[in-house]
Amino acid sequence: MARELQKRPSTAYDVARLAGVSQATVSRAFTPGASISPRTLAKVTSAAEALGYRPNLIARSLITRRSNIVGLAMAHMDNAFYAMLLSALNDHFAQVGRRLLLFAGNPRGESDPMLSEILKYQVDAIILASTTLSSSLARDCHKAGIPVVLINRAAAANGVSAITGDNIVGARAIADYLLRGGHERLAFVAGLENSSTSQEREQAFIDRVVAKGMARPQRTVGHYRADATREAVRHLLGARERPDAIFCANDLMAFAAIEVARFEFGLEVGKDISVIGFDDVAAASLPTWSLTTYSQPADAMARAAVRIIESGETTGQTQRVPGRLQVRGSARRPLT
Amino acid sequence: MARELQKRPSTAYDVARLAGVSQATVSRAFTPGASISPRTLAKVTSAAEALGYRPNLIARSLITRRSNIVGLAMAHMDNAFYAMLLSALNDHFAQVGRRLLLFAGNPRGESDPMLSEILKYQVDAIILASTTLSSSLARDCHKAGIPVVLINRAAAANGVSAITGDNIVGARAIADYLLRGGHERLAFVAGLENSSTSQEREQAFIDRVVAKGMARPQRTVGHYRADATREAVRHLLGARERPDAIFCANDLMAFAAIEVARFEFGLEVGKDISVIGFDDVAAASLPTWSLTTYSQPADAMARAAVRIIESGETTGQTQRVPGRLQVRGSARRPLT
Repeated sequence: MARELQKRPSTAYDVARLAGVSQATVSRAFTPGASISPRTLAKVTSAAEALGYRPNLIARSLITRRSNIVGLAMAHMDNAFYAMLLSALNDHFAQVGRRLLLFAGNPRGESDPMLSEILKYQVDAIILASTTLSSSLARDCHKAGIPVVLINRAAAANGVSAITGDNIVGARAIADYLLRGGHERLAFVAGLENSSTSQEREQAFIDRVVAKGMARPQRTVGHYRADATREAVRHLLGARERPDAIFCANDLMAFAAIEVARFEFGLEVGKDISVIGFDDVAAASLPTWSLTTYSQPADAMARAAVRIIESGETTGQTQRVPGRLQVRGSARRPLT
Repeated sequence: MARELQKRPSTAYDVARLAGVSQATVSRAFTPGASISPRTLAKVTSAAEALGYRPNLIARSLITRRSNIVGLAMAHMDNAFYAMLLSALNDHFAQVGRRLLLFAGNPRGESDPMLSEILKYQVDAIILASTTLSSSLARDCHKAGIPVVLINRAAAANGVSAITGDNIVGARAIADYLLRGGHERLAFVAGLENSSTSQEREQAFIDRVVAKGMARPQRTVGHYRADATREAVRHLLGARERPDAIFCANDLMAFAAIEVARFEFGLEVGKDISVIGFDDVAAASLPTWSLTTYSQPADAMARAAVRIIESGETTGQTQRVPGRLQVRGSARRPLT
């Protein structure tokens, strides 16, 4: 069928004859991840090259029902954490012979009607990073047996898996570290109000501080954006009772907070004021920022997504990938 | 055909009957960019929804020979410029109903044998960003009538289009600006030695400085990487005859150079030493970096790629997207 439509000069049959193998072997040679000996693979590859044969994976996907394409919707690609995550997903899926088809995520984090378009491409699975999906799309995917994995959003719907960093353990570790450092007036800068990631970090941080008998931290909102964070931090630092420590829900906002403290208020970060982030993007370790932060390992999260999808499971599971507190210079260290 | 393989409950025929339109109209309703009145579109959409109908775009692509998928191979996704470019390509292709299928580019900029896999997916076009393609792959694409567009690499092969920033005009503007600022000992930090982008910037910069009767700039190599750049800049600044101005072939390397000057040599950037980059990524305008740089507009470059591919042209054309010198604080300003 594919042959008739394609009108390609050479077929798998021709390749099999020239290589002296069966058609099934030719098929395996062109199926990423299929089992075949290196010697046989070499025979098939050189026969295919001699004949100018190229398998049409798209046509084949109609028969095998496996397109080897994974749909990925991602918002906030300009945030270094998501750029790192995208690169890691791309690498790890390539290793199992799968490719990413990109869809735009809604930067406000709401489910996007455009996402339903993903299903039209007969993808093997769907990953949504920092964006959610409507319950009707989740239902459609479940019915079609297509695994759905959310990254950095909690799974609300049935059969949807979720991978997050360890928001709760991380936010508690940050609270403990700041309190041990003798800070007394804490503040939290939230990301998007409707993001489960920001909500978890805020709740765990505030609960821990209150549980330790300290004053409830102030809170303000940076919407995961640099401009909104600068505005929010200006208000915090301009107030009469200025906080002595600020925990920002991600590194991007922590960098913005550091700049406002340094350039607009002339404060020495790590001495006059402490700033802590969450993510541990590459820039966090630069001397310029020397950002104390809780790591969210993009590579491990990408590997977890690949594992869930390769298992073919669609019952839905939640995985928290552990991180650790990266102690650097942006927050005053405890004396002991 | 697609119906038999898919065993989907509803067909375009059912939708056409329910909506009271022809099957061709149903097809147009689900073809991104096809002409259809809003009223008819609404009729078809609600009929499709009522019947749970979803067109299979992959199956249709075998008939229309248009998959609406564009293959994208990109290296250096961790560089903020390429993250910005990817996001812009994703947005602009979505507007014409096309989706990006991601392939890994080789970070060393050489052509990658994996790229030939792109052709197996029946993509409508191929974009290679900061990575090149082998002449045999270019020939295959040309034979198959698939447009190929390189971004930030010069087109070596027939029928391949190329989009770049204005490397030559930009490097000359930087040379002129530094000389007008009274700098006398210039240095250039190259990116990848085999990248046409870095080569063009270097050649134009050095030629201009020499043409103005000044000493030939020193040159060193940062490979577009932060660690290699730090090492190279340490050597430059540790020498007896230290340069008074450094032009780095991209912003990522300029940030690394600024850090070495500040934190390892205690220099005031913009006064004791001038540093200029190329790209104008978002971070360049932060007070922390205040980087003087020549802009390479990712959005305009993405729009140019979409225009070339939508035109269906495969004769090969080269477009230089103009930028401008963004004057900030990292380089001493001319007195006049």
